[in-house]
Amino acid sequence: MSDLLDTVRGLAKKTDSKILMVVLDGVGGLPLTLNGDTELATAQTPNLDALARESQLGLVELVGAGITPGSGPGHLSLFGYDPLRYVVGRGALSAVGIGVKLNSGDVAVRGNFATLGRDRLILDRRAGRPSDEKNVEIVTLLRQAIPEIDGVPVEIYTESEHRFVVVFRSQGGEGLGANLSDVDPQVTGVQPMLAQAQDPASAKTAGLVNAFVARAEATLKGEEQVNGVLFRGYSDVPHFPSFEDAYQLKAACIASYPMYKGLASLVGMDVLEVEGHEDALDGKVEALTQNWAKYDFFYFHVKKTDSTGEDGDFAEKVHKIEIFDELLPQLLALKPDVLAIVGDHSTPSKLLSHSWHPVPLLIRSEYGRRDMTARYTEEEAQKGSLGLRRGPDVMPLLMANALKLNKYGA
Amino acid sequence: MSDLLDTVRGLAKKTDSKILMVVLDGVGGLPLTLNGDTELATAQTPNLDALARESQLGLVELVGAGITPGSGPGHLSLFGYDPLRYVVGRGALSAVGIGVKLNSGDVAVRGNFATLGRDRLILDRRAGRPSDEKNVEIVTLLRQAIPEIDGVPVEIYTESEHRFVVVFRSQGGEGLGANLSDVDPQVTGVQPMLAQAQDPASAKTAGLVNAFVARAEATLKGEEQVNGVLFRGYSDVPHFPSFEDAYQLKAACIASYPMYKGLASLVGMDVLEVEGHEDALDGKVEALTQNWAKYDFFYFHVKKTDSTGEDGDFAEKVHKIEIFDELLPQLLALKPDVLAIVGDHSTPSKLLSHSWHPVPLLIRSEYGRRDMTARYTEEEAQKGSLGLRRGPDVMPLLMANALKLNKYGA
Repeated sequence: MSDLLDTVRGLAKKTDSKILMVVLDGVGGLPLTLNGDTELATAQTPNLDALARESQLGLVELVGAGITPGSGPGHLSLFGYDPLRYVVGRGALSAVGIGVKLNSGDVAVRGNFATLGRDRLILDRRAGRPSDEKNVEIVTLLRQAIPEIDGVPVEIYTESEHRFVVVFRSQGGEGLGANLSDVDPQVTGVQPMLAQAQDPASAKTAGLVNAFVARAEATLKGEEQVNGVLFRGYSDVPHFPSFEDAYQLKAACIASYPMYKGLASLVGMDVLEVEGHEDALDGKVEALTQNWAKYDFFYFHVKKTDSTGEDGDFAEKVHKIEIFDELLPQLLALKPDVLAIVGDHSTPSKLLSHSWHPVPLLIRSEYGRRDMTARYTEEEAQKGSLGLRRGPDVMPLLMANALKLNKYGA
Repeated sequence: MSDLLDTVRGLAKKTDSKILMVVLDGVGGLPLTLNGDTELATAQTPNLDALARESQLGLVELVGAGITPGSGPGHLSLFGYDPLRYVVGRGALSAVGIGVKLNSGDVAVRGNFATLGRDRLILDRRAGRPSDEKNVEIVTLLRQAIPEIDGVPVEIYTESEHRFVVVFRSQGGEGLGANLSDVDPQVTGVQPMLAQAQDPASAKTAGLVNAFVARAEATLKGEEQVNGVLFRGYSDVPHFPSFEDAYQLKAACIASYPMYKGLASLVGMDVLEVEGHEDALDGKVEALTQNWAKYDFFYFHVKKTDSTGEDGDFAEKVHKIEIFDELLPQLLALKPDVLAIVGDHSTPSKLLSHSWHPVPLLIRSEYGRRDMTARYTEEEAQKGSLGLRRGPDVMPLLMANALKLNKYGA
């Protein structure tokens, strides 16, 4: 299957121009009442308004019509990787989500703590949903008990409640396969299943998984509720063309939450240090400014526009948009050749969740046609000169506006 | 090849919300004079206008740019089956078009009556275009003469003029193949060809077809004009994911013409009884109301907007649109969670035929953005918030607006 990325990859060239992609997480919204204003339309955003008047606007669907993107597919799409083609497995996404870097040949596995009764019969597939503190306590025990299996380093990480992640690190260039059957039978009243390899490359991994299960049960035999482990969702490292290989861009990620740093590192971006807590916007601007000379492309992530939508807090989402608006002049001062502002999905306060609605895209460069849109809002973007597009169109448009793509064909 | 339907299929969930899809057959039109009003723009539609003001509008291309859809591809596209991928063979479409239900393993074949001369040389490939009455007379003779061949039940149906359909019913679980060469040489002055199997599963079918040709000629040897048969276009039953499998929807079809009932049954919808003649709009509303509690999804078909366009009768098409407008409040009274109004293709009176022009799409749900479109017309739809889309986008959008799709990826 060929897609736009394959084509762009053959046309990309190195130049001195700089691209800044600002992702306002979940920025798209909905009005609370029929034909009312969205969060973006409600916000007072003088700086964004001024920018919109000198930019091109459009709408972007990250995955497809009606499809609500998770953060992984939403970001991959913005980075130019068609999310229906480039799929990150659950294990890898979990590892990435907690900031664990995976290397080629490693396998990441999603685990659940479970409660086992007599004869190892599963009583509760989620071990009564333990607290995060209990999870950390159990993970600490397991780390001490299982630092390695047959010479393969084993890393165990807390996710939340009953969820944890195991990474088996490949040694000496021998990659571990990830094609094996689940330990989790998905029902209670039966024993955990034996993992079985479904191809030769995964035979060793199956042995590691089964040994892990046995040693974990031995370690946790004194526990009442959290005394077993179930595995489901194994994944090796996705084999994506790196960002540098695809676009000839030296790229940096400026984000503060593990999931986004993980996704960026998955496509080979450098993840810059950011000082500060939570969204740490000042620290992000500082990191951007300090590193401006060193990279061709910056992915600048703003999280709170999403979290406030997930909380169903319309007013607070409006406020977070206004906070970004205040920060915007500092980004403009760096004079990026191409500036994009976009979301990875919509998160309307009305729905308290991600949604399928297209997100507004703004591109400012020297090479746009007249575009009379006056604000960075969903409604204005719908009238914009860029039209309604799929997510993987965004990177080629940015590359083109940065004059970093050769002509296709003679 | 993966498409949106495959993705949606993995995300669909059952909920209590109800979707009503109204298909105004061939509703899109053209102005009769430069920059004039289309049929939709000319019609007085107070109810549709009010609905448009609280809905999202857009335009839909059912197959692709410039492509004029037949009723089959047009409807499949609305049902979410990409018509470039999910192809219904001519034989099956003919059978479906006259209301014949096909089962797995059956083969449907398109036939033409022909005139044969000395040495079976073809004189006229359409037997002088006999009347429909003559067609029925000949089909009656053939039914008596060929009720079965080698134990395989044979069904023969009138289509129109020189056209008929034969269905070979598979017996005892042994499916008949449909991969064989044509009997129709597509020229005159030669003999009909022998059908030859192009795979082992079609060997038996080829024998049936050749036996049918011989027995038909023997039966019709006293006829002057209609004394031979030619076959072209064999098809087995298309293997589509059912509507219920694809969307987790219990779906009902409310239509009065055989073609539409056939297409709906092809994707596994229940076809409801409709009282009345021709378009039977009152009977359709009655069927919808009576069955409202029993289904999650209703396909409600209105035919006359197409037929009047095919007749080239602009004023009468306008009138049929106004008749639907009068009926609309009865549909709104059922309070569907998601209501869609759309066409399966355009049928401009100016062209007296189907056309390639996009059709207006209206979606009303709780989860739309501001959309200032004031009427359900082609011109307003073009300004609408849904944009210009392909037909297979429609179902995912309806599913999303009904909150029946899980998130894609974490």
